[in-house]
Amino acid sequence: MKKIAIFPGTFDPITIGHCDIVKRGLNLFDKIIIAIGNNLGKKNMFSIKKRKIWISKSFSKKYNKKIEIYSYIGLTISFCKKKKVNFILRGIRNQLDFEFEKNILFINNELYKKIETIFLISSHKMSYINSFLVRSIIKNGGDYTKFVPNSVRI
Amino acid sequence: MKKIAIFPGTFDPITIGHCDIVKRGLNLFDKIIIAIGNNLGKKNMFSIKKRKIWISKSFSKKYNKKIEIYSYIGLTISFCKKKKVNFILRGIRNQLDFEFEKNILFINNELYKKIETIFLISSHKMSYINSFLVRSIIKNGGDYTKFVPNSVRI
Amino acid sequence: MKKIAIFPGTFDPITIGHCDIVKRGLNLFDKIIIAIGNNLGKKNMFSIKKRKIWISKSFSKKYNKKIEIYSYIGLTISFCKKKKVNFILRGIRNQLDFEFEKNILFINNELYKKIETIFLISSHKMSYINSFLVRSIIKNGGDYTKFVPNSVRI
Amino acid sequence: MKKIAIFPGTFDPITIGHCDIVKRGLNLFDKIIIAIGNNLGKKNMFSIKKRKIWISKSFSKKYNKKIEIYSYIGLTISFCKKKKVNFILRGIRNQLDFEFEKNILFINNELYKKIETIFLISSHKMSYINSFLVRSIIKNGGDYTKFVPNSVRI
Amino acid sequence: MKKIAIFPGTFDPITIGHCDIVKRGLNLFDKIIIAIGNNLGKKNMFSIKKRKIWISKSFSKKYNKKIEIYSYIGLTISFCKKKKVNFILRGIRNQLDFEFEKNILFINNELYKKIETIFLISSHKMSYINSFLVRSIIKNGGDYTKFVPNSVRI
Amino acid sequence: MKKIAIFPGTFDPITIGHCDIVKRGLNLFDKIIIAIGNNLGKKNMFSIKKRKIWISKSFSKKYNKKIEIYSYIGLTISFCKKKKVNFILRGIRNQLDFEFEKNILFINNELYKKIETIFLISSHKMSYINSFLVRSIIKNGGDYTKFVPNSVRI
Repeated sequence: MKKIAIFPGTFDPITIGHCDIVKRGLNLFDKIIIAIGNNLGKKNMFSIKKRKIWISKSFSKKYNKKIEIYSYIGLTISFCKKKKVNFILRGIRNQLDFEFEKNILFINNELYKKIETIFLISSHKMSYINSFLVRSIIKNGGDYTKFVPNSVRI
Repeated sequence: MKKIAIFPGTFDPITIGHCDIVKRGLNLFDKIIIAIGNNLGKKNMFSIKKRKIWISKSFSKKYNKKIEIYSYIGLTISFCKKKKVNFILRGIRNQLDFEFEKNILFINNELYKKIETIFLISSHKMSYINSFLVRSIIKNGGDYTKFVPNSVRI
Repeated sequence: MKKIAIFPGTFDPITIGHCDIVKRGLNLFDKIIIAIGNNLGKKNMFSIKKRKIWISKSFSKKYNKKIEIYSYIGLTISFCKKKKVNFILRGIRNQLDFEFEKNILFINNELYKKIETIFLISSHKMSYINSFLVRSIIKNGGDYTKFVPNSVRI
Repeated sequence: MKKIAIFPGTFDPITIGHCDIVKRGLNLFDKIIIAIGNNLGKKNMFSIKKRKIWISKSFSKKYNKKIEIYSYIGLTISFCKKKKVNFILRGIRNQLDFEFEKNILFINNELYKKIETIFLISSHKMSYINSFLVRSIIKNGGDYTKFVPNSVRI
Repeated sequence: MKKIAIFPGTFDPITIGHCDIVKRGLNLFDKIIIAIGNNLGKKNMFSIKKRKIWISKSFSKKYNKKIEIYSYIGLTISFCKKKKVNFILRGIRNQLDFEFEKNILFINNELYKKIETIFLISSHKMSYINSFLVRSIIKNGGDYTKFVPNSVRI
Repeated sequence: MKKIAIFPGTFDPITIGHCDIVKRGLNLFDKIIIAIGNNLGKKNMFSIKKRKIWISKSFSKKYNKKIEIYSYIGLTISFCKKKKVNFILRGIRNQLDFEFEKNILFINNELYKKIETIFLISSHKMSYINSFLVRSIIKNGGDYTKFVPNSVRI
């Protein structure tokens, strides 16, 4: 049976940290669904459409054939059920991420017993990159290009 | 002399984690004042009135006769002075909670020497529950009922 | 009914941090049993006898009449049962302490449901003091007297 | 191609936390090699032989046919190379575990690029259990049986 | 060659914690530029003008002649380049600060190799003070004067 | 006046992480005294003599003329007094390091008011390296050479 994982996030924008997790995750999974969360009244910097295009252009052919990109509304766990996927893939950079992820995971397990979340620790040369800092650099006119894949140009 | 503690929070809404701390606190204190903070310009999901009703219906008679419910405006420490209460009761779930509580406590002690804050660590089966996550589940149409007392129904 | 707590530790030697927790704890409890753990094959710097004497001389009369001092072998939880005490009092200085205490507490609750552990956060001017550092200072010939009560002189 | 992971540890003794990680890991991997590290001059409580027997009796037939048990001397990474396994499976309970695992992982990646470490977060009802605490309970004559599989009886 | 550092922040308002870091930093640096970040769409409580005046009145003559005060828009790193300053001075109070600063530092080093960030750990009697808590006290009508230099009066 | 710092440690053995901190520290200080702590009954892997030689061969001429190497017995703070040095230089890799250093610093300040400790955060590509892990690799026959300067060969 094929092993499929959902890799949820806001990807606002996708970073080289995200790309690293997806590529490494594909050693483990036969397919990864990159799922753009589109909810919670959070204001995003870039449109869903733009984010989807950037993601789709971030991976070479070899990876792209094993990747699907969706946006979803509502709980991640509901999207997993809908897609009949039992694995969530997540990257952890630091202790704050860990604590956050642990709580989400325990809540998710209460809501949907079958789900299993698989964690990869971010490669050390990417462990300081997150979309929030990238957006700050963009807003302040700094050079953001080192932290995002080539597809992301504004 | 009766030992009375204030258990402050936003309770937006009350969770089974809050209930656990109150019940355990009543082994230690003769009375607990559940104090709903109503300030700081924070936008809340539920009205003070609704939160009060939910809290009052969350405990059986045995506990309820030792509980009072108030809302207050201003600093918690000022409310303690006004009520002539020298104990604050707080639950801690994780290291982030701890760091936050530690700073609040040190500030409080500078402002009002007599106050003492008593901490209970959340029961492990509730250590991942917080009102923020419960509100997220509610907003996204998930099943929130496992994380709140039966009194909370929307 | 009298409220009694056990304050367990190795007290090798007692520090002003320990004294602070005991004094503050006596606002809450009618009696505190200071319980010197004497087990686990841990090598201690000072004899149980010396530690007991130092502890007994660390508090003024006002506090001393509410304090009992014991040493015990075995699990803290077993000593609590034996003494018919349902509260453990603990001080937390930092996040490492918190994580450690949390695990002990969960284990204790599995072993003895009735037990409740009450935490106080160390006063900020004592949050950096622990017996390990005091022993290091002593071993290296430094001035340890600022970190221990007057009773402790070597 | 079969996906195989090594689950390294000292298992001194195996706990229900270890069992939980192995069972959940078998949703992801076709085989798991439980690898008892036997090095570093660390003094262990139980013999390798005893630990192996306990592990082998900890899983039902359904799981056991997908499990192999070895002990090894030297670096985990060298054992992975020898066994031609590219995945390491690890459980994380808390922030301390995370920090420790992160450093090991970065070192491992420097030494052997192909290796990928997969993390599961311990189920919340097991997040406080570790072999060190279990050994303390055993040494102090407490009831350790809640924290280990039925196979472990002393 | 003179050693100059930039001490960036929002200083909304300046606290006695900030003053402590600047004074201690002047043991190390010949000049410190206090740089008020004015960007990111963050809503501030006090105007840049007021914050500048408060800062300038917070230090005695002895210190003031080694201090310059600026506000800046954009990335801190860009302001450093513009001022031809190679050192950033930062205070760290706790583990959360540390994690935050570490990520900023790594990003900064990617953007501008020459920059070096120097950290001082906040004096323990100030480790719990931050502008956010001070603003909360002000908003709620509490006594904020213990946490800010005498220059800050509202 | 010349600015001199002491960089204390066990350097058992020196790692590329230590070298990184010293080189970066020399942007700030006119001289750095690398001080090998030789106390506390800690068992070390390599002799003081070997550690000294390795350190002395770890830096190019440009750096070496600004470096002195000593070993010392007793408290670091006593060695600082003896050498009339008012700055200690320390690298921090992660939150555990931070917590540890914070306590040491507060103790040091109690013992010797004049001392100031300056922290650099380890470069991210070195943040996972420590002497303990290097010793483990050596003991287990792994390739340690990536983590130490060329001078360290066994």
